[in-house]
Amino acid sequence: MTPSPTKQFTKNILERKVGQKPGFLNVHEHSLPPRLFMVSFDGDLYESREFENYDSLMAAFVSQPQARHWIDVRGYQNLELMERLMLDFQIHALQMEDVINDYQRPKVEEDGNRLFIISRMVTFTEEHEIDDDQISLFTGPNYVLTLQSDYEDCLNPLRERIRAGKGSIRKKSSIYLAYAILDVVLDHYFPAMAQLGEYAEELEDCLFENPSKKLLSQILDLKREVVKIRRIIWPERDKINEILRMDEAQIPHDLRIYFKDIYDHAVQLIDLVDNYRETTSSLTDLYLSNVSNRMNEVMKVLTIISTIFIPLSFIVGLYGMNFSREQPDGEINPLNMPELYHPYGYVTLLGFMGLVVVGMVYYFYRKGWLN
Amino acid sequence: MTPSPTKQFTKNILERKVGQKPGFLNVHEHSLPPRLFMVSFDGDLYESREFENYDSLMAAFVSQPQARHWIDVRGYQNLELMERLMLDFQIHALQMEDVINDYQRPKVEEDGNRLFIISRMVTFTEEHEIDDDQISLFTGPNYVLTLQSDYEDCLNPLRERIRAGKGSIRKKSSIYLAYAILDVVLDHYFPAMAQLGEYAEELEDCLFENPSKKLLSQILDLKREVVKIRRIIWPERDKINEILRMDEAQIPHDLRIYFKDIYDHAVQLIDLVDNYRETTSSLTDLYLSNVSNRMNEVMKVLTIISTIFIPLSFIVGLYGMNFSREQPDGEINPLNMPELYHPYGYVTLLGFMGLVVVGMVYYFYRKGWLN
Amino acid sequence: MTPSPTKQFTKNILERKVGQKPGFLNVHEHSLPPRLFMVSFDGDLYESREFENYDSLMAAFVSQPQARHWIDVRGYQNLELMERLMLDFQIHALQMEDVINDYQRPKVEEDGNRLFIISRMVTFTEEHEIDDDQISLFTGPNYVLTLQSDYEDCLNPLRERIRAGKGSIRKKSSIYLAYAILDVVLDHYFPAMAQLGEYAEELEDCLFENPSKKLLSQILDLKREVVKIRRIIWPERDKINEILRMDEAQIPHDLRIYFKDIYDHAVQLIDLVDNYRETTSSLTDLYLSNVSNRMNEVMKVLTIISTIFIPLSFIVGLYGMNFSREQPDGEINPLNMPELYHPYGYVTLLGFMGLVVVGMVYYFYRKGWLN
Amino acid sequence: MTPSPTKQFTKNILERKVGQKPGFLNVHEHSLPPRLFMVSFDGDLYESREFENYDSLMAAFVSQPQARHWIDVRGYQNLELMERLMLDFQIHALQMEDVINDYQRPKVEEDGNRLFIISRMVTFTEEHEIDDDQISLFTGPNYVLTLQSDYEDCLNPLRERIRAGKGSIRKKSSIYLAYAILDVVLDHYFPAMAQLGEYAEELEDCLFENPSKKLLSQILDLKREVVKIRRIIWPERDKINEILRMDEAQIPHDLRIYFKDIYDHAVQLIDLVDNYRETTSSLTDLYLSNVSNRMNEVMKVLTIISTIFIPLSFIVGLYGMNFSREQPDGEINPLNMPELYHPYGYVTLLGFMGLVVVGMVYYFYRKGWLN
Amino acid sequence: MTPSPTKQFTKNILERKVGQKPGFLNVHEHSLPPRLFMVSFDGDLYESREFENYDSLMAAFVSQPQARHWIDVRGYQNLELMERLMLDFQIHALQMEDVINDYQRPKVEEDGNRLFIISRMVTFTEEHEIDDDQISLFTGPNYVLTLQSDYEDCLNPLRERIRAGKGSIRKKSSIYLAYAILDVVLDHYFPAMAQLGEYAEELEDCLFENPSKKLLSQILDLKREVVKIRRIIWPERDKINEILRMDEAQIPHDLRIYFKDIYDHAVQLIDLVDNYRETTSSLTDLYLSNVSNRMNEVMKVLTIISTIFIPLSFIVGLYGMNFSREQPDGEINPLNMPELYHPYGYVTLLGFMGLVVVGMVYYFYRKGWLN
Repeated sequence: MTPSPTKQFTKNILERKVGQKPGFLNVHEHSLPPRLFMVSFDGDLYESREFENYDSLMAAFVSQPQARHWIDVRGYQNLELMERLMLDFQIHALQMEDVINDYQRPKVEEDGNRLFIISRMVTFTEEHEIDDDQISLFTGPNYVLTLQSDYEDCLNPLRERIRAGKGSIRKKSSIYLAYAILDVVLDHYFPAMAQLGEYAEELEDCLFENPSKKLLSQILDLKREVVKIRRIIWPERDKINEILRMDEAQIPHDLRIYFKDIYDHAVQLIDLVDNYRETTSSLTDLYLSNVSNRMNEVMKVLTIISTIFIPLSFIVGLYGMNFSREQPDGEINPLNMPELYHPYGYVTLLGFMGLVVVGMVYYFYRKGWLN
Repeated sequence: MTPSPTKQFTKNILERKVGQKPGFLNVHEHSLPPRLFMVSFDGDLYESREFENYDSLMAAFVSQPQARHWIDVRGYQNLELMERLMLDFQIHALQMEDVINDYQRPKVEEDGNRLFIISRMVTFTEEHEIDDDQISLFTGPNYVLTLQSDYEDCLNPLRERIRAGKGSIRKKSSIYLAYAILDVVLDHYFPAMAQLGEYAEELEDCLFENPSKKLLSQILDLKREVVKIRRIIWPERDKINEILRMDEAQIPHDLRIYFKDIYDHAVQLIDLVDNYRETTSSLTDLYLSNVSNRMNEVMKVLTIISTIFIPLSFIVGLYGMNFSREQPDGEINPLNMPELYHPYGYVTLLGFMGLVVVGMVYYFYRKGWLN
Repeated sequence: MTPSPTKQFTKNILERKVGQKPGFLNVHEHSLPPRLFMVSFDGDLYESREFENYDSLMAAFVSQPQARHWIDVRGYQNLELMERLMLDFQIHALQMEDVINDYQRPKVEEDGNRLFIISRMVTFTEEHEIDDDQISLFTGPNYVLTLQSDYEDCLNPLRERIRAGKGSIRKKSSIYLAYAILDVVLDHYFPAMAQLGEYAEELEDCLFENPSKKLLSQILDLKREVVKIRRIIWPERDKINEILRMDEAQIPHDLRIYFKDIYDHAVQLIDLVDNYRETTSSLTDLYLSNVSNRMNEVMKVLTIISTIFIPLSFIVGLYGMNFSREQPDGEINPLNMPELYHPYGYVTLLGFMGLVVVGMVYYFYRKGWLN
Repeated sequence: MTPSPTKQFTKNILERKVGQKPGFLNVHEHSLPPRLFMVSFDGDLYESREFENYDSLMAAFVSQPQARHWIDVRGYQNLELMERLMLDFQIHALQMEDVINDYQRPKVEEDGNRLFIISRMVTFTEEHEIDDDQISLFTGPNYVLTLQSDYEDCLNPLRERIRAGKGSIRKKSSIYLAYAILDVVLDHYFPAMAQLGEYAEELEDCLFENPSKKLLSQILDLKREVVKIRRIIWPERDKINEILRMDEAQIPHDLRIYFKDIYDHAVQLIDLVDNYRETTSSLTDLYLSNVSNRMNEVMKVLTIISTIFIPLSFIVGLYGMNFSREQPDGEINPLNMPELYHPYGYVTLLGFMGLVVVGMVYYFYRKGWLN
Repeated sequence: MTPSPTKQFTKNILERKVGQKPGFLNVHEHSLPPRLFMVSFDGDLYESREFENYDSLMAAFVSQPQARHWIDVRGYQNLELMERLMLDFQIHALQMEDVINDYQRPKVEEDGNRLFIISRMVTFTEEHEIDDDQISLFTGPNYVLTLQSDYEDCLNPLRERIRAGKGSIRKKSSIYLAYAILDVVLDHYFPAMAQLGEYAEELEDCLFENPSKKLLSQILDLKREVVKIRRIIWPERDKINEILRMDEAQIPHDLRIYFKDIYDHAVQLIDLVDNYRETTSSLTDLYLSNVSNRMNEVMKVLTIISTIFIPLSFIVGLYGMNFSREQPDGEINPLNMPELYHPYGYVTLLGFMGLVVVGMVYYFYRKGWLN
């Protein structure tokens, strides 16, 4: 049996030690060794590099103070690196704990003019489960620092857009870059939702074709996935709403409309997920009604067969009785089963039983039981 | 099988590319070539024309600065036209994206004194589905600009009213025209709701006459349509409420009562749709109870037939036994089934079985099983 | 079949034309010709008259400026009269549309110091449905104007109170008169609720005595009536709450306690209706459980009869077999069914079968199936 | 049949006349003749008396202006007394109507520095119903006036505390006395809740031992009682919360912590009642599952018996056929049922049937149907 | 039978006397004799001692005014000690009542700059129940006073952290110590939740393997435990939220981020518990569907057996009839059951019945009933 969704969902949360010092960086044993990337851009400038070590990255970062930098750290294995990041980018220990802990609801915290944002990237896996990875993001005057535990992410279209220099992204501030990252992350929910929707329709088709025992369990699993993604999207929406309520210092007025746009997307996602919730509910109803209908059908077959043959069996049993035609004194007793001795007795009886069958079948036909 | 409502509902949302530049105008492949209409009016002035191209429309628009104009663009195929509209009417790229994207919740955005409003026009189709099209609306000092993807809409009664010059519509400002459009769009919900209600009653009649297997699926589909229209009407109400909370600059005081009026209509629609939700819920209950009742009826037929004939079959089996009257020594054994040799044995037995049947039937009659 | 509650509920709303001019007075074809009443009072003064035409009413109204007047218009057929009322009492076209449209949620609008209030009068009909009529009320410095579509209403006790001069009603302002009307209208909900409650108990008794197929449908209809009255009472409460939040100019301080009192009544009604909602829910549960119990009973009868007789039938079938005692060579074969030739074979078998029956019955008795 | 809870709950509300003058004192026909009590105390002073008539009570009240007085009126039969109370203690007619009307939600009204508080005292009766009586309370500078319709109440522990002079109650203000009364009334909810909880467990035990038809009806009645007490406790909590939000003039700062304490108790009661709601819900689930399980058991017995004996009956029927061994020409036909003539035919058949039974039983045992 | 969860949950609440003086310290009969602990620390200073009596503890406390002290009282048996604590640490009688009463929702009260906090420590017991103990906490300028009824608690990791001097805890203020205690208490919810989750999966496995009668009852018990822990965590979250809204005087700005962190943990716990609620709901659904499926299976076995053998039994009964081949006049009657005298009659019949069986089995196979 594959691990249940609940198990998947709660594992990350529960893998924390009780009573540890707040801000204690509890690096998972499966953490990957960190890889360091930086994209630097400024109008015509565009550089995208992977760095061997943190020192060379910082050197490159410091050498171009006029440019915007997207520093991208993937993998948390190196505790020392984490501590240097905390120092160089003024990250609070509790925030770094949230980054590494790797199960956090989407949220935003502001610290002066700097933002700390946690988002979740979702994919719909082959096993029909919602898989969600965390991406943490810190903004600064001329940089955005993102941290994620895996090497793979969904941000390549954005990297390509910066490289191509399409749109005004190279000319805009670091907060616009943060917006662009949030936008791509949220855009990635849509294909996951589409796959989830297709899977729901697959199950619905199964329901009509071959409603197996396993199906209900699959439907209930899907229901839980829908509830799970709902529990991710709502705080996502709240997070963006909180950003929208921030003042000029954090979110310049001309960028507000962009955050309003991803807010609209989040609300659309909530509409979608509520829609799926309805769908999965009616799937359960349909399943139970199908089970009930099949029981009904079984009952009908039993009833039709029994109702036709039980009276016939009685009749043939009747003429299997041994009432004696001959009295002990040898006289013929004309009252004891004279039918048995009638020349057309058997044929008449067969005809009568045929009529009973026809009558029964007609009765069931009228009741609509034969469809 | 027709596409499920979910599919219809989500298709539009999901047909967007991940990671595209914000404000990127993603023209659908099935978009229609644009048609350009303008109605100009001012007291006695009334002109309604379709224009060959955008230049001639703009020329006519500019030549009558004192009049009010309703510019009406239908079909989004021409990307260049869209970009010229953005330029001439100061439309933000993200707003134009919302227009073309064609699935947006009803909403209003204010930008200085100008409003950007998205509404949805609903119809109830032959396939018993709620079909909804988007109409986008921009207000300006002396114009209203509407955009829609189809050539057909529900605004002809309003066009006729302007032409006839009935009421004060020709003398009022462009914001009144915007109100009039919203009013007509919302009025169109009522006949759609009426048709949905009639369909619900049709299903209810079916339920009592011929509750087929397909019916539950139809009821659940209807339920989803009701949920869907509910999800459209609530933001519609919120939108109008937001307009009502705007200040004097956007909504002059003497027009406020008109928006209050359509707010009341929106609340009535919510009442109606909640009513339908109750109705569809009780349809499901009735369906399940009907299924259960029919199973009960099947069981009763089986039980009555079995209960009458099984004892009778036992009796006739009894007298079909071959206990020997003659002992091996040729003596008559008076204890072995003397009934069989009694002159009235057979007749008495038939009478006894008749009594058993009458007794059983009376018992079932008293139990109320024969109704 | 009587029209379903849904039909009744929605007919009024849906009988409006799409795209009509706002404030267009759409007089129903079944409207009654108007009757005009006025009660005038002031300390010792008391006059109650029906007027032939509007002019004589206005003459009487104008001739006693120091008195309070309750002008009471019943029937909307005369469009011209409506327009004169709008003119003389400064009623906005949209408000008059609400009056005539005749399906409006309870609401209050303030316009300077004047109030426009819509209430609904409910009765519980013979067909066990909630019937609700609208009464519209405008207040002015020395008058209250009420409008209703029917000739009959529930305000006679109030008219009698004014006539008798009981209490201080004759000495109080017109806003007190408005309060008194709202109070009587709300008081009328209580007997309607009582009748609804009695009907619910009637259905509950039926449930235990004779749970017919029709009953569930009646219970679900009742449920919808409860939901419907709930949907009327909540805005009624909100309306009164809104009045309570108005300032001194609209509601003088010494009258506030009276409106607080009807607010308490509205809250009691909500308690009551929630109570009925619980009741109808448990009726549905009881119905379904009863259906299930009866199926159980049917099953038990079948099972008891079958379980007793099927083994017996086997036994008698056993001794109906024709195994031959005589071998082909004429020898007696002592192994083939010697029981049949035993002198006490038949009697012993009957006794054995009697024991089987007693054992079975005891088993069922122990299982508690015989109760 | 005992009156249903609904009947009990609604009787009081509905026993009011429509259209009566607001503040009209509608004395019930079953009202008791009033009894007048007063407890006066002040440090060392302590007097507790029942008075013959109102004049002597007022004389005693006026003669000790420096003391605190708890005036306690029980029984509303004397309308004149009520009117004198209204005059002497400045009680508004509408408030006195609330007192006598005797069904009011818990609420508080402030009038200057004076409070008018309505509480409900609950008990759990022998008939397993929540019985609630109203106590109305007016505070004044040096007195608390309580009114109740019955002679019995739950305040004796408080009277005893004042008499014993325990705590600081004799030294505190009249508002502290009001607090003490509210506290004792609320404390009385806990034993009622405990009895209700015990009754719920009793029903749960019945469920497992002897799930009769009546039980579901009892469970649903209990559910309604829980809903009913919930509907009393919530406004109780709101009332105390409203008192907590009053300012210094009504509730002195040093008494605030006492009201905070009873607020905590009210919240605990809500927790408890929500807990019981869960419990009764799961009782319904368990009941329905038990019914279903028993049906299952009945079905199993039927199926086991039928499945064992129906094939056996077929076999014995087979050898009851009369295929003739002798041809018309007197030849032996070796193909027609030779088994019947085999010396070990009968014994072999009995053995075979025994094997069939063993096989069937083993099959059911493997299926787990025999447990 | 073990005591039901409800009983456990309500016992504490209900064990209070009605009408007792507010602030009356009602020491439970099972209270433990108090043990007194104090941890004192200040940079390098670290002392952890258990004291014989209260006087020696106070002497040590007073002798080190510059240090921070964590005074830890376990066991409430000594009423005199409680009263001395109230005096020395200015604890209000009502607060001490809350401490001893031992069933309080998590809450915080502020009194000047001092906080009074009640938390609940949860564990998941062997009997699969949520067990929760109360810890009460008072803060002062240089101390934190905690009170608990048991000797065992979950705070040892924190004591160890102070001893080891890890982190900055020794250098921080007493409010930080209070935070650290709340943090450890809340961290303890996670393993309890994990155990609850594992138990839920155990039940789910049982459901598929051996769905016994007892299982539903276990599932419903688990559901109630989930509801119960939910009712503890929500006020826990509200409590921390209230602390976050306090001003600088209570919570210094630099500590705010720590309370924000435990707020995030509380929200995660709510997510988790909502997740478990979904899980237990779908367990109930699965259980009921399993019951229904098994009934279906029983029905199918019965129907297959009956449907195959009933017609066969009819056939063999048919040829067990005694229609006489010989007329009374000795003539052969060729119409009365000639099959019985046909040389291949028996063999043909056996073959025909074999065909009927094969046909039936094929029919059921096609219906999918044999899987």
